[in-house]
Amino acid sequence: MPADIIITNGIVVTVNPHFDIIKNGEVRIKDGRITSVGPVGMDAGHHPEAQVIDAGGGIIMPGLINTHTHLPMSLFRGLADDLMLSDWLNKHIFPAESKHINEHTVRIASLLSCAEMLLSGTTTCCDGYFFESGVAAAVRESGMRAVLGQGVIDFPAPGAPDPARNIDIAREFLAAVKDTSPLIHPSVFCHSPYTCSGKTLCAAKALANEFGVRFQIHVAETKGEADMIEGAGGLSPIAYLDRLGILDENTIAVHCIWVDDVDIEILADKGVCVSHNPESNMKLASGAAPVAAMLDAGILAGIGTDGCASNNDLDMFSEMDMAAKLAKVFSMDTIVLDAQTVLTAATMGGASVAGLSEITGSIEKGKAADIIIVNTAKPHLTPMYDPVSHLVYAARGSDVDTVMVNGRILVKDGALVYMDVEKIMDGVRKVAGEVMRG
Amino acid sequence: MPADIIITNGIVVTVNPHFDIIKNGEVRIKDGRITSVGPVGMDAGHHPEAQVIDAGGGIIMPGLINTHTHLPMSLFRGLADDLMLSDWLNKHIFPAESKHINEHTVRIASLLSCAEMLLSGTTTCCDGYFFESGVAAAVRESGMRAVLGQGVIDFPAPGAPDPARNIDIAREFLAAVKDTSPLIHPSVFCHSPYTCSGKTLCAAKALANEFGVRFQIHVAETKGEADMIEGAGGLSPIAYLDRLGILDENTIAVHCIWVDDVDIEILADKGVCVSHNPESNMKLASGAAPVAAMLDAGILAGIGTDGCASNNDLDMFSEMDMAAKLAKVFSMDTIVLDAQTVLTAATMGGASVAGLSEITGSIEKGKAADIIIVNTAKPHLTPMYDPVSHLVYAARGSDVDTVMVNGRILVKDGALVYMDVEKIMDGVRKVAGEVMRG
Repeated sequence: MPADIIITNGIVVTVNPHFDIIKNGEVRIKDGRITSVGPVGMDAGHHPEAQVIDAGGGIIMPGLINTHTHLPMSLFRGLADDLMLSDWLNKHIFPAESKHINEHTVRIASLLSCAEMLLSGTTTCCDGYFFESGVAAAVRESGMRAVLGQGVIDFPAPGAPDPARNIDIAREFLAAVKDTSPLIHPSVFCHSPYTCSGKTLCAAKALANEFGVRFQIHVAETKGEADMIEGAGGLSPIAYLDRLGILDENTIAVHCIWVDDVDIEILADKGVCVSHNPESNMKLASGAAPVAAMLDAGILAGIGTDGCASNNDLDMFSEMDMAAKLAKVFSMDTIVLDAQTVLTAATMGGASVAGLSEITGSIEKGKAADIIIVNTAKPHLTPMYDPVSHLVYAARGSDVDTVMVNGRILVKDGALVYMDVEKIMDGVRKVAGEVMRG
Repeated sequence: MPADIIITNGIVVTVNPHFDIIKNGEVRIKDGRITSVGPVGMDAGHHPEAQVIDAGGGIIMPGLINTHTHLPMSLFRGLADDLMLSDWLNKHIFPAESKHINEHTVRIASLLSCAEMLLSGTTTCCDGYFFESGVAAAVRESGMRAVLGQGVIDFPAPGAPDPARNIDIAREFLAAVKDTSPLIHPSVFCHSPYTCSGKTLCAAKALANEFGVRFQIHVAETKGEADMIEGAGGLSPIAYLDRLGILDENTIAVHCIWVDDVDIEILADKGVCVSHNPESNMKLASGAAPVAAMLDAGILAGIGTDGCASNNDLDMFSEMDMAAKLAKVFSMDTIVLDAQTVLTAATMGGASVAGLSEITGSIEKGKAADIIIVNTAKPHLTPMYDPVSHLVYAARGSDVDTVMVNGRILVKDGALVYMDVEKIMDGVRKVAGEVMRG
């Protein structure tokens, strides 16, 4: 079968089940799917029509998967830092959201976030926010792959002033977005067990089940949350959600910091997917999730940046670095979360969390061509004994040269092919000017 | 006085004692020194000969100061990760050093490290290693500013096979390097209280005093070290060094993780300078230094990357991010090490640690022009409410466009002006090939 794209002359870090690394490798793509992976010259066939991409000796790897984001929050990047969580939320983020978040600002800020993610090698994200159809429009325009959840919360929220209508609005989103694009997977994003009643949690989960989609929820993020829920009913946040019947293999439990061994057993038994967000958890002083213990228990875990207002970027390379180092220093063990484990979490792990492990997350025959090329001919990536070490401990988002989603080249020579990034940045700056005026 | 360089059209983050930020600012330079800092148009004088550098609305700031490095160790970047400290050192790093470290490899790997540091906005570093005259040659070639210490250790070391000659070799280095360049400040780097006898520690400190130079030492890095020293004499590592008379305002105490309130009081009383190395401390699972408490106690503290074999890069931007986030999550307090505190530590704090606070570390009239420009017209730095937040939480080394040391432009449009980076990388790759063959 003649290929229409051939990526050649690079180290292929496949992240397949054997974690094969092909030193001088080549990937062939036809109609957006990977048709072969192997050493250069493996296939004597002629591909006269194929576009050849020379990786220049760099690393050819699966696109990174960001399992937790709030894309429109790039509008508030750096608006408020170094504050107590309650002050940050109540005095800065919530007022800014209530005044400045609308369909237009959600779309423009989501475009900015997609541009940032693509330029730093992320090809798939799991998002949850309000006006999520605006996020969907931006993601569609960007060409990325995504799981997108309309927010459900028992407070007046942007686009959902009446909490009584939250489930209806989420249903409208699911109905409107499903089947609009093979790259977009609608979902339900229920904010948390401390901002939603048991009734809302159950209704939101029932809605996700009805549509057969992922259910995303923040849980066990802070000690305050854990204390509040335990104080109310004697159960940990995880045990409480389990009691409600929320936890299953379609649930993405985000954060999972304040979990004990029993909670980890519940998460493992129910096949719950976990999104680990080290930078946000550190910056907001929420704590360090026991991610090594969760992985050991067989829990599917991916890595996420969280909204970039609490990070303050969407760079999955720095997130991998932070995940590895945070786990080591918290457990006082250099061995936990080694580079291969972290890279796997940020690719195949993320694909599993997103429910897309058959489609993306690795470079394997039959999968969609969600592939990035990292340029390693730079001082900070020289010499190279081990490409995986470099990807986790030394590379930055800015080392990504080429990004392809579903076989479509979205970033070439480190620049966006289709998105007008200057126009997008100008649009966001205009809105930010209004935010600054209050 | 006519300027010979004018940097204009940027946000000047001065890091002067008032932490002044000039929104649309300009910096004028004459003969390598800053002659004025203020808003664009402050000075109606004519400067017909001046080279004008347009910062394009980006951030004009003091060059970053890396207070702890082992420059030649870039040769071992990513050679071995995710190992117990003892295995990492004894099975990988020490054997590789003993076989592959020589005058040639020290020089070529130090050139690589200088290239990496300059490209990521570091203008001054404090280094300690063996064959330090090779490091000095490389740093001189790069145009950077540095404090460079010949290593002293009571074991056979590269270039110093007989420990009995360690002090003599350090003395020869001091004598040979002093007064060779206004940018290079020789120093003594005594490895640690657990690898040097009390006699060696005292002799090395006496030598530093004799030459009036900085004395650098790793101390209180691991719990094992603290236990060993306390076991031997009942004193903490800090109290032990104090008892020996090692601690004063010319001593740079690197790491200082395993310190208690009494140790912090000693460090403060003696005016000791501290280098905080968060990424290395996390990756080697050494622990988290109480840097906020040390700053509160009035201790001069700077930030360092450590050797990039335990990091694995020399990017001070990611180091700032990590410093802020590590302190927050360890203390469970979002407020500690806010962005301004961290940026100050990485600039003026570092200058004080290096003993160069009169010369560098801030953009002030009379200081040397050690200045960098950060390009903020990128998605991950948009919008911008607060330039200081961006520098700590969102910028990366690759956002640095222009780097000037002592008024000499070393990086322009993100590329090195004088160093042949391709040739340097090729040289290091050749040596790394030999390292790989064992």
